[in-house]
Amino acid sequence: MKLNIAVLPGDGIGPEIMKQALNVTQTVSDKFHHELSYQEAVVGAVAIDETGDPYPAATHALCLKSDAVLFGAIGSPKYDNDPNAKVRPEQGLLKMRKSLGLFANIRPVNTFPSLIHQSPLRAELVEGVDLMCIRELTGGMYFGRPQGRSEDGNTAYDTCIYTREEIERILHLAYKFARQRRKKVTVVDKANVIATSRLWRQIAQEIAPQYPDVETDYLFVDNAAMRLIQWPRSFDVLVTENLFGDILTDEASVITGSLGMLPSASIGLHTSLFEPIHGSYPQAAGKDIANPLAMILSVALMFEYAFELKDEGALIREAVNASMEAGIVTEDIAEGGKAYKLSEVGAWIVEYIR
Amino acid sequence: MKLNIAVLPGDGIGPEIMKQALNVTQTVSDKFHHELSYQEAVVGAVAIDETGDPYPAATHALCLKSDAVLFGAIGSPKYDNDPNAKVRPEQGLLKMRKSLGLFANIRPVNTFPSLIHQSPLRAELVEGVDLMCIRELTGGMYFGRPQGRSEDGNTAYDTCIYTREEIERILHLAYKFARQRRKKVTVVDKANVIATSRLWRQIAQEIAPQYPDVETDYLFVDNAAMRLIQWPRSFDVLVTENLFGDILTDEASVITGSLGMLPSASIGLHTSLFEPIHGSYPQAAGKDIANPLAMILSVALMFEYAFELKDEGALIREAVNASMEAGIVTEDIAEGGKAYKLSEVGAWIVEYIR
Ligand SMILES: CC(C)[C@H](C(=O)O)[C@@H](O)C(=O)O
Ligand SMILES: CC(C)[C@H](C(=O)O)[C@@H](O)C(=O)O
Repeated sequence: MKLNIAVLPGDGIGPEIMKQALNVTQTVSDKFHHELSYQEAVVGAVAIDETGDPYPAATHALCLKSDAVLFGAIGSPKYDNDPNAKVRPEQGLLKMRKSLGLFANIRPVNTFPSLIHQSPLRAELVEGVDLMCIRELTGGMYFGRPQGRSEDGNTAYDTCIYTREEIERILHLAYKFARQRRKKVTVVDKANVIATSRLWRQIAQEIAPQYPDVETDYLFVDNAAMRLIQWPRSFDVLVTENLFGDILTDEASVITGSLGMLPSASIGLHTSLFEPIHGSYPQAAGKDIANPLAMILSVALMFEYAFELKDEGALIREAVNASMEAGIVTEDIAEGGKAYKLSEVGAWIVEYIR
Repeated sequence: MKLNIAVLPGDGIGPEIMKQALNVTQTVSDKFHHELSYQEAVVGAVAIDETGDPYPAATHALCLKSDAVLFGAIGSPKYDNDPNAKVRPEQGLLKMRKSLGLFANIRPVNTFPSLIHQSPLRAELVEGVDLMCIRELTGGMYFGRPQGRSEDGNTAYDTCIYTREEIERILHLAYKFARQRRKKVTVVDKANVIATSRLWRQIAQEIAPQYPDVETDYLFVDNAAMRLIQWPRSFDVLVTENLFGDILTDEASVITGSLGMLPSASIGLHTSLFEPIHGSYPQAAGKDIANPLAMILSVALMFEYAFELKDEGALIREAVNASMEAGIVTEDIAEGGKAYKLSEVGAWIVEYIR
């Protein structure tokens, strides 16, 4: 098969983890006789520094003609505390999501037995946690207009907006994933207060009967934030709008104690994109110490979701598990054992696959 | 002192826990020679059933002329799953907050040593947790207009809006509380994406230098959702806008394992209101099994914040702690020991105070 990939390392630790992810991609492609071709492009702070635009047209063109995008991370502290900065790295991320139509962000969150003791939660609560967060990614308050300030600058406003099509599309996706899993969908909204959530709940109530084999549960977002901590095993597929998803998926990602291990996929109209959940971790940039496993597992998701190559994905997962069992891990999960470098972990996994 | 109180038991377990709270209020008033006068009124589902309005004018008039409002809980399952219901109990709550100008919701979250083992978090993370969430309560998406549907019903929209005055007022309050505590304010927003958050952050950056003795920290809301679980002791005063506050304060309230124990205060322009954090818990209504301690601790907050009567508040706290030490507690925190009835716990506390 021909694998045509766009590679966007981005900011912070992005380039380092991407290097390992590419080695893994190349090795798996060789082994399974796929023809890999990829091209790199800039995005985020590094793109601002180079071109003034956090998501330059050339990067967009490259993504559009690719079958999948591998993405590192975005964000740089020098932009975070300047509320008046005209251009911010995050704008690049949002522009990319919108213009590639990446409407669904999928985050599988599962427990790694060897990392349970790292979870902030008590072990008996996180054992066996296996949930999938599906976050709407191109609607809601992130893109609603008008957004801005009054003339005197003393009033600010944002708009949250959702259409039936946007909601239906992602709910159907949630049910399809649920059918391949434990057949339960939890729809999270704030239908007791806001109008967009009432539309979400109405449409969910219309769609649920079309999937009689799947159980549907409704939770208010505040309640969901509690339940994720109190009883994470009660979730199978959690689906929600953009901003709630931003908060809840991050919350969910720390409960298993394996933030450095979690990949994500963004399913799109024009292509799909794969990235680790953790951010750009600027403090570790260039130090060869960050954990490359989430990025490498994102490659596994790419093989599975973008190319429907299950064996390739499975082999990558196997290699990652093997590296953990062998204790070839970075300092964040070394726990008293020897801490390996980012590049050493990557090399070990490549060797295993080969 | 003359204590002039409005009493709104509300829905679900509201009436039962309020009964105990009133006994406590009366006993403390007698003991300290205050002249207590109170009057009851309806709010929520019970008010809809009685008057068609979840916050009737008579209730509002009563609250307006009172020095403090004691509030139970609101919400009934029969309204939750009907996205098209014209009147909902929650509207009463929102109308009450808005028309009483209850702009700041204050939730102290602290660990009870005897309940640490009930926390979903590992004990070493929650030991000594003592934070205060301050949630803006009369602005943001809860009240922003336009809110509604397109004519064909297939598009829904909400508006988030904040003014400088709203933001300044609550930030100053946060700094004032921080000065009486560990002198740290964490401002939570989503300034990397939304305009209202950028105004919050800008104003926070203007105000912070006026409190040079207080440390100011900025966190994006997704990050805060993680940090609350990973490192709850890192927070002292957390201040944020309405919807983020809804989510984060609920999240914060479960980390210590003492949801049934947490009171809250809503500071207002015209009066102030005191209520437990837990909801109306309809499954337990009428069964005399719910935990009255959060409601009783709300009475303590009322004495302290509304009437500046510190000794009275301290005595209530002492009584609550004594009941827990003596094991006179409801089933939710009995943990193998004997479970007492709601009314028995209330009676024991009244007896202790007397
Ligand atoms: C960086 C930021 C704009 C982004 C978001 O809010 O979507 C991030 O938090 C994420 O979840 O990918
Ligand atoms: C019932 C609901 C409208 C309310 C809110 O969202 O404010 C509740 O969740 C709360 O936090 O008091």
